Amino acid sequence: MLAGSCYALRPISFRKFHSQAFHAQGLHNCGRGRFSLHYQLPGSRVVPWSLKPWVERERERERERLPTDRGSLNNLTASAYYDKNDRDPAIELEGFPSELPSLSAAQLVCIPHSTMALPLEGRAESGEVEAWLWGQIQAEARRDAESEPALASYLYSTILSHSSLERSLSFHLGNKLCSSTLLSTLLYDLFLNAFSSDASLRAAVVADLRAARVRDPACVSFSHCLLNYKGFLACQAHRVAHKLWNQQRRPLALALHSRISDVFSVDIHPAARIGKGILFDHATGVVIGETAVIGNNCSILHHVTLGGTGKVGGDRHPKVGDGVLIGAGATILGNVKIGDGAKIGAGSVVLIDVPPRTTAVGNPARLVGGKEKPAKNEDVPGESMDHTSFISEWSDYII
Amino acid sequence: MLAGSCYALRPISFRKFHSQAFHAQGLHNCGRGRFSLHYQLPGSRVVPWSLKPWVERERERERERLPTDRGSLNNLTASAYYDKNDRDPAIELEGFPSELPSLSAAQLVCIPHSTMALPLEGRAESGEVEAWLWGQIQAEARRDAESEPALASYLYSTILSHSSLERSLSFHLGNKLCSSTLLSTLLYDLFLNAFSSDASLRAAVVADLRAARVRDPACVSFSHCLLNYKGFLACQAHRVAHKLWNQQRRPLALALHSRISDVFSVDIHPAARIGKGILFDHATGVVIGETAVIGNNCSILHHVTLGGTGKVGGDRHPKVGDGVLIGAGATILGNVKIGDGAKIGAGSVVLIDVPPRTTAVGNPARLVGGKEKPAKNEDVPGESMDHTSFISEWSDYII
Amino acid sequence: MLAGSCYALRPISFRKFHSQAFHAQGLHNCGRGRFSLHYQLPGSRVVPWSLKPWVERERERERERLPTDRGSLNNLTASAYYDKNDRDPAIELEGFPSELPSLSAAQLVCIPHSTMALPLEGRAESGEVEAWLWGQIQAEARRDAESEPALASYLYSTILSHSSLERSLSFHLGNKLCSSTLLSTLLYDLFLNAFSSDASLRAAVVADLRAARVRDPACVSFSHCLLNYKGFLACQAHRVAHKLWNQQRRPLALALHSRISDVFSVDIHPAARIGKGILFDHATGVVIGETAVIGNNCSILHHVTLGGTGKVGGDRHPKVGDGVLIGAGATILGNVKIGDGAKIGAGSVVLIDVPPRTTAVGNPARLVGGKEKPAKNEDVPGESMDHTSFISEWSDYII
Repeated sequence: MLAGSCYALRPISFRKFHSQAFHAQGLHNCGRGRFSLHYQLPGSRVVPWSLKPWVERERERERERLPTDRGSLNNLTASAYYDKNDRDPAIELEGFPSELPSLSAAQLVCIPHSTMALPLEGRAESGEVEAWLWGQIQAEARRDAESEPALASYLYSTILSHSSLERSLSFHLGNKLCSSTLLSTLLYDLFLNAFSSDASLRAAVVADLRAARVRDPACVSFSHCLLNYKGFLACQAHRVAHKLWNQQRRPLALALHSRISDVFSVDIHPAARIGKGILFDHATGVVIGETAVIGNNCSILHHVTLGGTGKVGGDRHPKVGDGVLIGAGATILGNVKIGDGAKIGAGSVVLIDVPPRTTAVGNPARLVGGKEKPAKNEDVPGESMDHTSFISEWSDYII
Repeated sequence: MLAGSCYALRPISFRKFHSQAFHAQGLHNCGRGRFSLHYQLPGSRVVPWSLKPWVERERERERERLPTDRGSLNNLTASAYYDKNDRDPAIELEGFPSELPSLSAAQLVCIPHSTMALPLEGRAESGEVEAWLWGQIQAEARRDAESEPALASYLYSTILSHSSLERSLSFHLGNKLCSSTLLSTLLYDLFLNAFSSDASLRAAVVADLRAARVRDPACVSFSHCLLNYKGFLACQAHRVAHKLWNQQRRPLALALHSRISDVFSVDIHPAARIGKGILFDHATGVVIGETAVIGNNCSILHHVTLGGTGKVGGDRHPKVGDGVLIGAGATILGNVKIGDGAKIGAGSVVLIDVPPRTTAVGNPARLVGGKEKPAKNEDVPGESMDHTSFISEWSDYII
Repeated sequence: MLAGSCYALRPISFRKFHSQAFHAQGLHNCGRGRFSLHYQLPGSRVVPWSLKPWVERERERERERLPTDRGSLNNLTASAYYDKNDRDPAIELEGFPSELPSLSAAQLVCIPHSTMALPLEGRAESGEVEAWLWGQIQAEARRDAESEPALASYLYSTILSHSSLERSLSFHLGNKLCSSTLLSTLLYDLFLNAFSSDASLRAAVVADLRAARVRDPACVSFSHCLLNYKGFLACQAHRVAHKLWNQQRRPLALALHSRISDVFSVDIHPAARIGKGILFDHATGVVIGETAVIGNNCSILHHVTLGGTGKVGGDRHPKVGDGVLIGAGATILGNVKIGDGAKIGAGSVVLIDVPPRTTAVGNPARLVGGKEKPAKNEDVPGESMDHTSFISEWSDYII
């Protein structure tokens, strides 16, 4: 699998209304937390289809004991690329088959977000995953090029003219990171060679694309992330720099590091080790030091520092576990451990270990619930992206 | 009017000394707060003329019961482009008529900063305002090109060769934001088309130029802001991206968004709604999310985040009222309201509503004066730019 | 001297082991604090040789009463460009003479870091220092070009093709900061003219290169800093802008300022006065206002703001003394004094004077040890880079 294990998928029933709008049933059986619906015609590819905004609105109503409005799903048709009030995150219906043969012959599958994978378990050989994702990206680019002629040339050169995801990404990174003395052709070859020869790099690309798509409500398509997310691009370029570093090609790794910091304002030392399924959201100002380690499925906001203390050479930067969420502007200094599933509030200054599944907030940071019996996070913060639910527990935080 | 209503202007008397230096009288009648003097020959255009440094120095002396020195205004002559001690903000006397016919025939008008407009009320049809401002900018560029041959070519291509402010701005933005795959000609057409067809975009350009010129003591001229202020440039490019977003040209809006974030390190989602008269000072690292709203006449420093909480899709970002000042590095998360005239201290972390005209500081932020009876700001923080006067009231802040 | 006064150098004895590995003795006599060993063959140039990682490990062991292992120095041979565990900062042995004639004929000199100079006192006419450093940089570039053909062309154009450090730096800055309207040739001439005509600018370049090399464990060579450190490059470009500002070439200074802010995300007003031996580590997001002053031998991390209060024009920004360390994300506002040898913790918000040799932390910042009897820093924070040793004294900071 791409990232973590995948739950057994539970088919749910649905009921067609008119046209391509329909009403899904069985959502109550999906368990706690956020999830996505996937649409699958028998024998065909699985198409991700986010019902998140609708479902969350419904659950909010349930909590407040208001009448729920499952019929509102009728409003979500294949043509509703963005929702009607023009403010909510996009409802992605791309790839929805236009000649919907018989909805009762199709299957809607519900996948909790914390374990969602693209595509589904059982068919996840990495080559197939990449091919599926690349097909999606090309379809998105074709759609955008058709609807926006001003972008057609741009989309052709960055996506549509390429035969694979790694070629597209290498071309795009080469163009972004080149300078008058560090040519784009050199960088293109460098990236392509790294991605082509290393399946784990490609798997990380896929996992990171998925992380942005699933966790960031503002991420409207995979191609949006591929082309526009500086955090995603900086992270992939870093992965290549890290590979060069480990191959003892350090001057080249450092030159790449410098370009990434100049172009994206994301400063990750090439020796830093970063897991898969990482979302660097917004990403401007992120600084990650030489001996830092980041686990899998973490979400790290902009202006976050994983810094050294400067006192001692050697191993001197934070070690961040799996599923950690680090809020905007948090500063974590020294060789400290941030446990699996921990959450660091925005603007916090952390200088000491944070136990697994706890939340640290403030300057200096303290554990929500106190150090004796800290509150334990129920979900995976790096995936749920819940930045503020600790407010009610944060001492006397009321203004 | 450009921004807010404009007070009735009170003519004040003045007394000529030698040459073009003179002494203004009647400043006591100008009311509280900062203000600017404008020089107006009968029947001619109004020329803004900042006495701010002098006036503030005098008021400081008054508060401390020292003898005031109104005669020091003699030092401000038309040739004193920068003041004599080489450290104060520039005294802008550009456009001051060289053939000053008779000072007693002229009129000095005093306009409180919080309502200042360029030019004055009653003659503010938007076309005339733009024409006046464009004339100023070209005059500044001619002066600079003459005094600095190394910049002549640069100023010619960016300002002097253009027939209007929107052409100059479109050219400059196109050059700044282009890449090898997103051509400057495409961007130029895009910007020019947007500015040419939308008077409200042009009015926002004028209001933002004025905001920088009036509020930032380091802003020495309109052309300085137009050419060099990444916050100004990012904001204007955002306004175009926002227009594209509303025209359902979203892939293009997002591509522009990405370039703005790369080039200026200013990350404003194209769906965010931003008022007029906005100063993004320094601007590096500003992050503003999809459903954020910012009112008019706000000043927002660098590294400010108006972020989501990640918990819920839909409307999830802060709503900032009019006249708000947000200090450097402040982080505001969630769909919270920052009331009109509120002030957020530098480095604050704000997760809950801040009432109008109050000041929130700290991590987590609290209201100065307490939540029961918070202190009320007397001036408009977004325009007075007073970042630190709350110190004496901020609990036991003494180091 | 390059930066501050230089201690009398104490020769220490050493004992050869096998090959080029040897054991230094007499380290106990070097005084407190960090220091570097320099290797000097009689009559030849001095070669800097960092023992820092080893010495610190040994001192750590001493503190913990573990047996020290001076023999571990054996592991540091001329071929150990990076240390064996692949994680520690590089042990730089470049330039170490391969035909080591007789170690007992050579001399090891020990120079405390806080006063270290390159090369040693007594031979430090600035021309010789620059020549030595330029020789080092070219040797490093040759080594890297040989080991990494992909970088050969880049290193040739940026370093190896140039006849002096100022030509190389001017070329590199011109390339980094140019745009389609501000040509690299113009900028090259501008930089070269400034560096060539002003020995103090060149001395600052040398002092800043040394500062990065000595204080930043991740800085593996002088050429690494010269080519890749945006903080170093932004600072040198600022020094030229500052010179232009003082020559009344202010529009040009401001244009340069703007480019530096765009390209490096480092925003230093050209009027700000900055001493020598400055390390801007990571540097992204640094903002330094018009009337700010920074002394010598300071270390300033990324996202640091030396800002105005906006209330008053004129002198309105912080005054930072010598040897100050300012941690990541610290915000210092207003015309306040940060005394010599003071330390500002990461994420602190400082609005009031900080006395010399004290440490201020938190939001709002307070003095470690209390305002009556604040703890006094023993070392020079700007050079020791100790960001976190105050933790145990910081009230009840335990999470």
